[in-house]
Amino acid sequence: MNIKNVLVAQSGGPTSAINASLAGVLKATIDSVEFDRCYGAINGILGVMSENYLDLTDKAAKDPDFIKLLTHTPAMYLGSCRFKLPEYKDDDSSYSFIFSQFKKLNIGAFFYIGGNDSMDTVLKLSNYAREIGSDIKIIGVPKTIDNDLCHTDHTPGFGSAAKYIAGSILEIAHDTFIYAVKSVTIVEIMGRDAGWLTAAAALARNSYSSAPHLIYLPEVAFDKERFLTDVRNELAKRDNVIVAVSEGIRDKDGNYITSSKAMADTFGHQQLSGAGKALEFIVKENIGVKVRSVEINVLQRCAAHLASRTDLDESFAQGKKAVELAGEGQTGCMVVLNRLSNDPYQVEYSYAQIKDIANEAKSVPAEWINESGNDVKKELIEYLRPLIQGEVEQYYEDGLPKYLDISHLNRC
Amino acid sequence: MNIKNVLVAQSGGPTSAINASLAGVLKATIDSVEFDRCYGAINGILGVMSENYLDLTDKAAKDPDFIKLLTHTPAMYLGSCRFKLPEYKDDDSSYSFIFSQFKKLNIGAFFYIGGNDSMDTVLKLSNYAREIGSDIKIIGVPKTIDNDLCHTDHTPGFGSAAKYIAGSILEIAHDTFIYAVKSVTIVEIMGRDAGWLTAAAALARNSYSSAPHLIYLPEVAFDKERFLTDVRNELAKRDNVIVAVSEGIRDKDGNYITSSKAMADTFGHQQLSGAGKALEFIVKENIGVKVRSVEINVLQRCAAHLASRTDLDESFAQGKKAVELAGEGQTGCMVVLNRLSNDPYQVEYSYAQIKDIANEAKSVPAEWINESGNDVKKELIEYLRPLIQGEVEQYYEDGLPKYLDISHLNRC
Repeated sequence: MNIKNVLVAQSGGPTSAINASLAGVLKATIDSVEFDRCYGAINGILGVMSENYLDLTDKAAKDPDFIKLLTHTPAMYLGSCRFKLPEYKDDDSSYSFIFSQFKKLNIGAFFYIGGNDSMDTVLKLSNYAREIGSDIKIIGVPKTIDNDLCHTDHTPGFGSAAKYIAGSILEIAHDTFIYAVKSVTIVEIMGRDAGWLTAAAALARNSYSSAPHLIYLPEVAFDKERFLTDVRNELAKRDNVIVAVSEGIRDKDGNYITSSKAMADTFGHQQLSGAGKALEFIVKENIGVKVRSVEINVLQRCAAHLASRTDLDESFAQGKKAVELAGEGQTGCMVVLNRLSNDPYQVEYSYAQIKDIANEAKSVPAEWINESGNDVKKELIEYLRPLIQGEVEQYYEDGLPKYLDISHLNRC
Repeated sequence: MNIKNVLVAQSGGPTSAINASLAGVLKATIDSVEFDRCYGAINGILGVMSENYLDLTDKAAKDPDFIKLLTHTPAMYLGSCRFKLPEYKDDDSSYSFIFSQFKKLNIGAFFYIGGNDSMDTVLKLSNYAREIGSDIKIIGVPKTIDNDLCHTDHTPGFGSAAKYIAGSILEIAHDTFIYAVKSVTIVEIMGRDAGWLTAAAALARNSYSSAPHLIYLPEVAFDKERFLTDVRNELAKRDNVIVAVSEGIRDKDGNYITSSKAMADTFGHQQLSGAGKALEFIVKENIGVKVRSVEINVLQRCAAHLASRTDLDESFAQGKKAVELAGEGQTGCMVVLNRLSNDPYQVEYSYAQIKDIANEAKSVPAEWINESGNDVKKELIEYLRPLIQGEVEQYYEDGLPKYLDISHLNRC
């Protein structure tokens, strides 16, 4: 029997958990009877198109700590890309090259770890495979801090980002509450169209702190006057008001609330910056108390030192599940998580057809947002809470987190 | 014998280690034969002026974990203030009230934990004590993430901030290196006049990453054209250039490089924001590669979950040393650290006269900055390295760091 190899690549924006899924694919391949070696393509599908590979099975064989360290290293060990394949009916040249590479490397399954845009690549490759009668399995492994993929309970990377955001909001609360002067602190959180990450700020609330006191999601049209009323009401109750706001808030006409010009990136999204700064200016000009904005920025997606144990475990398991699905003959699908219960928290691993997932986005449901549109309801907090549970045993070297060498990506 | 009590307060900006010093004062007071109870004033010297106290000895007696948790809790457990006492020769009314409070609480020693501005309060109170013939000991305990206090090797809070900054730069490097496209990432770091914290970014460099590739300190006049040449040179060597820049960089005429209007705060400093954004715009307009700026912001001073063990241990020991000094009859002084050697790292605890410290600031010496003014020398890295060593055993509750209840500060 000709035992095939597998090829894996990573795509889209970084998370603290995307390498845990890669580690899961690698571990399951090593342990499997169906597959032989696990190759990684550098910089997503572009690595296949430029024949740039790493032999991950070899890496794991040479370093007994490789899989463990890989699981704890943030961002893409294999590098990433933001590349959208053309429709193969328009131009199949890249498809024929990719499948010739699969043949050359004796690939039986290709795993693509990524978010919405990456699932578009999985959809196109699996459609092309069917078109040409290839039996190579094409399977997506989800990943996005935004938690906006459909047909899965939540996405790898989200729990760790949520934990970092909630922890940071708690620490900002300690930082802010020290002065007995009226102040407003605006914390801007990632999430273009879906407010899941911003909602996670609510997890910072505990027995002594109700921060954040106001939460604005992109799912609710932002109204400047209502915002000013909300802030004034909170300032009447306490000295220091902390506001969590999504980078993607828009007014009722769909215009982003931002202080800088929006620009389109490759996928037609808009590069956002400035919702926090915009709210800072609104408070400064209209209320006049001390005001500061904090943009948590890329740290929320790469601060692996504060990753969620639950998130890394589930991400690893989803990588393993992808290899199992390929072994069972599945293709054109994405690994999904179904939640069985919140308390005790229980999930099961399954899969869904990729055509139902690619290019779709899941928003925070309206019934989990309060009537005033300035906070989240307890159902949302109960959904979020299990995802940040558990800490990761972190490795340190010379005072800093120890991560895997990524010098193969480029000249660092 | 009439055993006196001690009073302690905290002032200025937050750090991750200022409560470790408070814990040291409390522990040493409990263990001492010279002193009885340890009281804390809420919101710095303003707490004395408004008779707002906590009995810390009582807190420690009621909760066996109090001192341990206090040591790990960021920002001021007692709250803070930014209040400058008038000269007592102009107006001694607040002084006479403060000393009447000392008498009422049977205070034998007053400890003020803070930075440059707080040491001004220590100087004034100790001068006034001498003037009125009071034998109450007035002692400063240093604290500032800026590391700019004179006559001490380094300051409590600096090592933890440095560790967070270096760790974050390393994680940002992982986040940035994934894309095979030319990019510049600007990381703005705190430090108005002294570049110590920005220099600490250099600790992120390791065997596989040379980020940050450029470092700009406030000690060197910033030149836009030289900066653009530096960035172009780095972009010729690698895809992804990471720049660490101080919030306080100024041009040769002393004007801040900032994209927002500067404002004076109580102490005549300028509220800064925007050096990172300013450099982002400079790169965008002149070079045109993908560019992003990240402001690490308040998290660098309150992210206690990534505190330096060395920093917390030394901060605790400096709090204890203050109580010892008071017991020995010292006053009008600040606890200092003298470094005996870098490797092995050894320090000794001593004190210096407060008149030599208050209102002075220590900059990064010119001989520790490279000729081109865009990096630091190895002597500076050797000075910094020991200060971020060691991790803190962190307590977690429900997925988040467990800190002390601070609801006594105000309506959180």
